[in-house]
Order: sequence, then C-alpha cells, then structure tokens
Amino acid sequence: MKLRILVTGGTFDKEYDELTGSLYFRDTHLGEMLRLGRSKLELEVETVFMMDSLEMDDSHRATILAACLRSPEARLVITHGTDTIVETAAVLARGLAETGKTAVLTGAMVPFAFGSSDGLFNIGSALSFVQVLDPGVYVAMNGRCFGWDNVRKNRELGVFEEVG
Amino acid sequence: MKLRILVTGGTFDKEYDELTGSLYFRDTHLGEMLRLGRSKLELEVETVFMMDSLEMDDSHRATILAACLRSPEARLVITHGTDTIVETAAVLARGLAETGKTAVLTGAMVPFAFGSSDGLFNIGSALSFVQVLDPGVYVAMNGRCFGWDNVRKNRELGVFEEVG
Amino acid sequence: MKLRILVTGGTFDKEYDELTGSLYFRDTHLGEMLRLGRSKLELEVETVFMMDSLEMDDSHRATILAACLRSPEARLVITHGTDTIVETAAVLARGLAETGKTAVLTGAMVPFAFGSSDGLFNIGSALSFVQVLDPGVYVAMNGRCFGWDNVRKNRELGVFEEVG
Amino acid sequence: MKLRILVTGGTFDKEYDELTGSLYFRDTHLGEMLRLGRSKLELEVETVFMMDSLEMDDSHRATILAACLRSPEARLVITHGTDTIVETAAVLARGLAETGKTAVLTGAMVPFAFGSSDGLFNIGSALSFVQVLDPGVYVAMNGRCFGWDNVRKNRELGVFEEVG
Repeated sequence: MKLRILVTGGTFDKEYDELTGSLYFRDTHLGEMLRLGRSKLELEVETVFMMDSLEMDDSHRATILAACLRSPEARLVITHGTDTIVETAAVLARGLAETGKTAVLTGAMVPFAFGSSDGLFNIGSALSFVQVLDPGVYVAMNGRCFGWDNVRKNRELGVFEEVG
Repeated sequence: MKLRILVTGGTFDKEYDELTGSLYFRDTHLGEMLRLGRSKLELEVETVFMMDSLEMDDSHRATILAACLRSPEARLVITHGTDTIVETAAVLARGLAETGKTAVLTGAMVPFAFGSSDGLFNIGSALSFVQVLDPGVYVAMNGRCFGWDNVRKNRELGVFEEVG
Repeated sequence: MKLRILVTGGTFDKEYDELTGSLYFRDTHLGEMLRLGRSKLELEVETVFMMDSLEMDDSHRATILAACLRSPEARLVITHGTDTIVETAAVLARGLAETGKTAVLTGAMVPFAFGSSDGLFNIGSALSFVQVLDPGVYVAMNGRCFGWDNVRKNRELGVFEEVG
Repeated sequence: MKLRILVTGGTFDKEYDELTGSLYFRDTHLGEMLRLGRSKLELEVETVFMMDSLEMDDSHRATILAACLRSPEARLVITHGTDTIVETAAVLARGLAETGKTAVLTGAMVPFAFGSSDGLFNIGSALSFVQVLDPGVYVAMNGRCFGWDNVRKNRELGVFEEVG
C-alpha cells in the first residue's frame, strides 16, 4: 500500500529566523521527521505550498483538492495549519466524495524545529489512521481521529474536540 | 473509548547514567511523551516492569499477559524492547484469543532520552492503530502494523518486516 | 569567587506560545542552563526584568546599572538582547568606572527553548571570561570577548565584530 | 589570535548504536557544536584519536603531547574523557613547560548526541579560558578552571573539585 503526504505548511514547518527574530517557512521537515521515526512506509512527499493556514482562501483549498484528486495514491495525509484545518477538511470532503480516497489532515501546535514538537507524534498517528480507515476525510490531532464534520479547534485550550 | 498502555521497558525508556557512562532504566517517559504529543486520549499508563527484552523469560511474558487479561480496557498498547517483541506478541496472541481484546506492541530503536528518538512517532502510531483495528495482536513499528504471526526484526537493518 | 548573573531577557529566554503562534517571555531559562552545564560556580541569578532589548530606553539601562552597582559581587554576567547590547554596555562602562567591577554582557541568536541554541555556549563563555578579566565592561559573543567600545553587531550576518 | 582544538574522544563524542544498543565513537561533534554556538573564533579542529579515556595508556598521552608540541598555535583546547583527564593534564604540564603554550582540557558528563549535554557549555567555557590565561595547563569543567596540579574528579558526585 503506497501513501502520499501533501505538505501545505502550518506550524509543523515553521522556523526561527535568527536575524529578524521572527517565524517563517523554508523547507518542510517531513523528510527528517520520517527519518527520525524510522518510517519504512512506501510513500511520496509532495509540497503543495508552505503557508500559514490563516492566510488560505478558497483558491488555496481548491489547489489542495486538485492535488488530492490527481494523486495516484488513494490514501493521503495532508499536513496543514491548525487554525483552518477544519475548513479545508470540509472542502476536501465535498470534492473527494465518491472517489474512494481516504484523506487524513493533521497539524502541530509547536514547530518541529523547536524541539518539543507534537508533530512527530501527530505524523505517526495520521500515517497509521490513513492505512486502516474507510474512504472519507478525517482530522487526526491529539492522538484522536475525527470525522471532518464532527470536529472543531478549541482555541482557548489549543485542542481539538467533537462538535456535538 | 478508553485505552491502556502497559509499559515493560525496552530501548524506549533507557537513560544515560553520567556517573558510570552506561545505560539503565529509571522511570518511564510515557507520560512526558503523551504530554509532548498533546494526547487527549482517555487512557491509563501502567508500568508492568522496566527491563531489557533480551532478559525476558516465560514468566515475564506470563506477567504481561496477566496484565492484559485483567485490564478493564479492551484496547491495549504495550511498550516493549524490540529484540523479543515478536516472541511476546505470540504469547499474547494465544492468551488473548476469544477475549475480544486488541493489543498493539511497539518499541523504539533509540531511547527517547537521547533526543532523536523514534519513540514519539511509534507511540503516536500504536495509539492510532489500536483504536481502529479488530481484536487481535499486532506489532506497530516503522509506521507499519504487522499481524503477530507475520513479522520479524531484521537485525542487520534494524527494521521490522513481513515474514512471508 | 562568587559571581552574579543579571537577567534582562532577550532572545535567550524567548518562548513559543502555542495558542497564538507568537514568541513571548515567561521565566528565565538560566537556572536550567546552569543545571545542564553542570555548573558548580558559586553564583546568584537575579532577574532584573524580561524584555526585548529593542524596547529598552534610558530608564531601563539605568535600572540595569543600578543592579550592577548594588551587587555585592564584583564579577557580573548580564544576559541581554543582542540588538542593543552594545548601547547598554556603554552605559555600564561609564557607570561602573572606578568601581573595580568586571561586567560581561552576553546574549543569544536563537532562543534556548528552540533546542539548537547558542545560549548554552555563550553562557559558558561569559561565565569563564568574567572570572579572569580585569575590571571593565565587555561583550562576549561568538566565542569572543570584546571591549565595550570596540564591538558592534553586524545585523546582516548576525555576528559581532570589532569596530575598528 | 588563532586557536587549536585537539579532539581525543571521551563522553563528549559518544553515540548510540541503535543496532546493538551500545555506545561507540564515530566522528567528532566539535564542528557541529561550534556551529551551534555560532563561534567565530579562528581555529583548527584536529582529531588526534577517538577513545574512552579509561583505555588510554602512556603512549596515547605521548601522542597527545606530541600534537600539542607540533601545533603552530600557542593556545590549545583538548577534549578528553573525564575519567583520566587529570592524568593527561599532568603529562602535558611536564612536556609543555617552557614552551609558552596554554592548554585547557575539557570534557563532558553526557554525550552531546544525547541532547541535554554539558558539552556545549564546557566547550564555550574552555575556548574562553584559553584565550586569556597565562601559559600553563588547566582543566575546565563545571564552569570553573583548575590548575592541572590542583584538581580531581569526584566520582561519586560526577564533578571536579580542588585537591587541597
């Protein structure tokens, strides 16, 4: 079973610019994370773009959906900023219906480059869920897996929870 | 859904003793790993014992099985040294048959305390597989999940692979 | 020989706020850094304040100088943001002349909390220079020690260099 | 002022072999440590050998001394296992007398590769002491600098202290 990881940026991949003291994107850390995790999964890593999910609009989500649709692999993990991960999940759910594809979106609360990241845990989790779940769109965060239409980010606590 | 993690030691939890320059066990790092991973799973962490899996004998495996049998939770993750994880999986498979329990064993190639561990990735993976797999005994390593009777450790490469 | 460390903030002590995605100050990491470094120096750590050195004005520098003057220890290390560390050094040089005190200012380009910090290296360096240098005011960065009136930050390269 | 670092191994540079679960030497981490520390010192790094200092005998110490003697730089930092660092310091003190050279030996209690190392702190310290101390042989550990004939390792506490 071959998988595909679509990288879209988010906290996952933020870095610290020591000249300006600000956070920015450079290259994705997914490759290094998979190496640290000793992943032996057969998979492709594709960078769609690298952006803060607060800056995404409909056209960006259409680009992510297009990348899912043209993927030859039926099982997809999408790394994404947590702030609008639920909005993107809804777009993918509509666009991927009837395609038989399983898409699991995941993110991070702390940049991988800052050492104490939840990113390594989350990518291990998302890559596992995507191998066994039925076709559909899901959000994997906090060790849990939510259906795309039953999840929200609790911004006060920084955790994901069911809507209902 | 409530889970239980049974800790048995292994590379996962090895530490460096700076007075002697050797590796040893102290307390498990599972709690810190779950905190770093921002896990919000409902789960119990139970330390069965802390040992190198090369030193386990039948009585140790019987103790692990007993802990599985008396667990009120039907979904179990077991952290274990990788050298004999497959032997323990076989013992659990026989002992847990017909109990309806799902047990996922996982380990690490590098101690969590040494920074670049695969442990965080593997625990994220094992906790995800255990939530969705049918009753049975599995080994989760390298991002993959193997049935207990179709896995071996390739000691030259340090990776897990199918037997067949 | 007893030393004193005066903490004033700077990149050294910045943290990542995972709820807002921004950088902020909480408590100083000096204690943890001294523990990691296995420092057995007799010293006091005093937090003067925690701020970005770009926001310091004359009154803040007067507060740092006052802390130096009232210190019973004659050898002082001051952690400071790198952007205006040279300005503060000049204020201290004038105010500490004839007091017989040795003050070494140091900073960091990367927050300690982000893992790959230069802070541990710099604090080891500053604490060493301060023990052996004659009275005066110095800036210790990049493994080097500069007199207060012969140093500037090269903002393009992010390194300190002589003026002359 | 140009410096030279002589690498001889020790805990500083130990690595974890994930196939055997044991500690071993590969390449020195000095270059990476200097990069992390943003060192801008003019220096040469020379690997004399990589060994556990418990295994050193007189011939190994003669080799280190020879490297010191032929060094064109008068200021030398020597990384060394802590167990016999004092013995080597004594050999160097005799051999370097009247040469005008300043040699500072330093080590680590925790391998750099294990993340929470004292190595970065100690190398920052040793590189600073060596720039300002008079000719002679010293041991820099725990933020302190000891004359070669007034230091011992307290093996119970894992710290260095004066003999007297």
